[in-house]
Amino acid sequence: MRQSQLFTKTRKEAPSDEVSKNAELLIRAGFIYKEMAGVYSYLPMGLRVLKKIEAIIREEMNMIGGVEMQTSALQEKSVWAKTNRWSDDVVDNWFKTQLKNGTELGLSFTNEEAFSSLMKGFITSYKDLPAYPYDFKTIFRNEARAKSGIMRGREFHWKALYSFSRDEKDHNEFYKKIRQSYISVFDKVGLGGRTYLTFASGGTFSKYSHEFQTVSDAGEDIIYVDEAQGIAVNKEVLNDEVLADLNMSRESLQEKKAIEVGNIFSLGYKFSEPFSLTYKNEEGDNNLVYMGSYGIGISRLMGTVVETLSDEKGIIWPESIAPFTVHLISIGQNDKAQELYETLTTKGVEVLFDDRETSAGAKFADADLIGIPHRVVVSGRSLDQGGVEYKKRDREQGEIISVDDFVSQF
Amino acid sequence: MRQSQLFTKTRKEAPSDEVSKNAELLIRAGFIYKEMAGVYSYLPMGLRVLKKIEAIIREEMNMIGGVEMQTSALQEKSVWAKTNRWSDDVVDNWFKTQLKNGTELGLSFTNEEAFSSLMKGFITSYKDLPAYPYDFKTIFRNEARAKSGIMRGREFHWKALYSFSRDEKDHNEFYKKIRQSYISVFDKVGLGGRTYLTFASGGTFSKYSHEFQTVSDAGEDIIYVDEAQGIAVNKEVLNDEVLADLNMSRESLQEKKAIEVGNIFSLGYKFSEPFSLTYKNEEGDNNLVYMGSYGIGISRLMGTVVETLSDEKGIIWPESIAPFTVHLISIGQNDKAQELYETLTTKGVEVLFDDRETSAGAKFADADLIGIPHRVVVSGRSLDQGGVEYKKRDREQGEIISVDDFVSQF
Repeated sequence: MRQSQLFTKTRKEAPSDEVSKNAELLIRAGFIYKEMAGVYSYLPMGLRVLKKIEAIIREEMNMIGGVEMQTSALQEKSVWAKTNRWSDDVVDNWFKTQLKNGTELGLSFTNEEAFSSLMKGFITSYKDLPAYPYDFKTIFRNEARAKSGIMRGREFHWKALYSFSRDEKDHNEFYKKIRQSYISVFDKVGLGGRTYLTFASGGTFSKYSHEFQTVSDAGEDIIYVDEAQGIAVNKEVLNDEVLADLNMSRESLQEKKAIEVGNIFSLGYKFSEPFSLTYKNEEGDNNLVYMGSYGIGISRLMGTVVETLSDEKGIIWPESIAPFTVHLISIGQNDKAQELYETLTTKGVEVLFDDRETSAGAKFADADLIGIPHRVVVSGRSLDQGGVEYKKRDREQGEIISVDDFVSQF
Repeated sequence: MRQSQLFTKTRKEAPSDEVSKNAELLIRAGFIYKEMAGVYSYLPMGLRVLKKIEAIIREEMNMIGGVEMQTSALQEKSVWAKTNRWSDDVVDNWFKTQLKNGTELGLSFTNEEAFSSLMKGFITSYKDLPAYPYDFKTIFRNEARAKSGIMRGREFHWKALYSFSRDEKDHNEFYKKIRQSYISVFDKVGLGGRTYLTFASGGTFSKYSHEFQTVSDAGEDIIYVDEAQGIAVNKEVLNDEVLADLNMSRESLQEKKAIEVGNIFSLGYKFSEPFSLTYKNEEGDNNLVYMGSYGIGISRLMGTVVETLSDEKGIIWPESIAPFTVHLISIGQNDKAQELYETLTTKGVEVLFDDRETSAGAKFADADLIGIPHRVVVSGRSLDQGGVEYKKRDREQGEIISVDDFVSQF
């Protein structure tokens, strides 16, 4: 895409009320637009990042049998009353609205009830199990304060998968698989090295749930990392029994601040029971469905990447989720840049082509702020020296290489 | 995809309160799930259709310079107060909600204000124009009654593009281009033959707006079609002056009920003025930006296809937006069906493979209801006769053809 066609602009300053690093950088670089505290619109480059994260997650979910769908945002009282989660006294972050006739409605703050209710229409027999529906969805949470940018929004984007299995054994097999998928997702989006499978509180039906925690100073959680085992424990559950259970010693643990980027949870019969979500087994007996819940905050993940992968000049996107692969900068009038743009796009490489009439300095500063992984500059000087000036976003120094050498790496 | 993996099931009956044909068929075939009147979740096959319609529109919008982004659903009073569209006395279909501190918020029922406000941050000079941002978005409208299925939902999906041009002349050039894109969209989704460019009421800044109206008994609008010219006039504006203007005679017009599937509108300065959305021209003078608005209801379009392209047995999807291209039905145990499934999917053909242990009759009825364009049956009998039984959804009769002949057409 030509930068002249992209209507967004970089800014020197973020809005004065913006205190989070992720939103500050994303607003300045033109990825998001602040509608109000905790509510952001995604500008073209921001949407491209979100969609790439989505695509990575979609591929992983489909690989283990996930089937994508799309639930509604508007929610009915009767569905949530079944689990006693309708009342604002029980759930304090509902956004509620109402129909013209006064009927109260809610905006999805999570999705267990919606999926349990919906699946009741489709599950009757053991032949209908297992089922792994999931969706990418806009979620609304009426947070009293919203100061973490896109890491804790009032309106945000997530993926949630719910598993419906015939018993705990089948559930556990799937749970192991999806745990592995989650590890793969965080690896692919570039957070693998600093994201830990973290043991957290379970519930009636399992000893632990698992969080995926990315180490960051912007984190709101405290975890204890066992570097040797590559796992962690949430402070909430840290005690001697848990340590023994996980084969950890207190001395080997490091306390870290971390951002919860995903969590997986065995729900057991917690939701199937109030919804009478049952199936008939081979003998014709009714049994409750065994459920699990698996979430990833897509926008939070994007914010976490910005919090952890950036420097004083701007964002450093991992290639897998970068809005574009190459930032092509043209200095002065030259046909070579135009030619290179066409060569790369014909090859299917995603290029942001800075064809604007702006100073070289401004273009370089914008490129650093935006953070596309491969920067290539075509100028009279680079051409005189035999090619283009190529610099990776995470390197200090660029080098002159021939156009062919540059192109051949993609 | 294997039908055994798809958790949805067909139903003999739609919910008793469902009166629209589109929702009735879509619910029975397992494309949508009714959460409440006017609010539907999209089941896996429904989402596939929505995404295909989206992809067709996205391609057309990008081709004329559209740049995709994603605006928020939650909306702030101050933005809508600028155009006097915040009050429920002025706009009667807002869904409103509020923050914990009592601040009132709205849920997007349309998007002009959001885009005008956002673009004010990016447009300052003539160099920033034109700009054509668009988004696919969930829209909320508090309809007093909701009886048209997904054709008029309380929560629905649309595409809206807004154009920002320096003057009326530039605007008109783009307007002509996007009018052509719209015609192309309706052609591609299979509604071309029955969709008319329809002259409707304009506004302060243009004599007419243009609607795209699909002839259907389920339509809520009355249009007058001039078959020879291939255009129509909305009843709302039909008078002698308009007839003369469009070179139409009353005698040649046919009255039809029609569904408005898209509309394009010259907004002029209607929104740029209250938002003081201006740009500096080459001489440094401030001028108001000239705007246009271009919408397509994605879910309504899907509903319109079902209303117009179906028979007594079920839906007849056009290939371009069908959830799958081929419905492969296996009768009895045979490896050939499995083999054909693998051959087709390896070729990149989207196949729904009915591998369920169900009667042939039930499988055929489901296939007709679901409406995938190419049905192929692999049974002991078809194999004895030399191949597979192939039938298009819109044909009465099938034929036996060899596996190779069947595969080679994709």
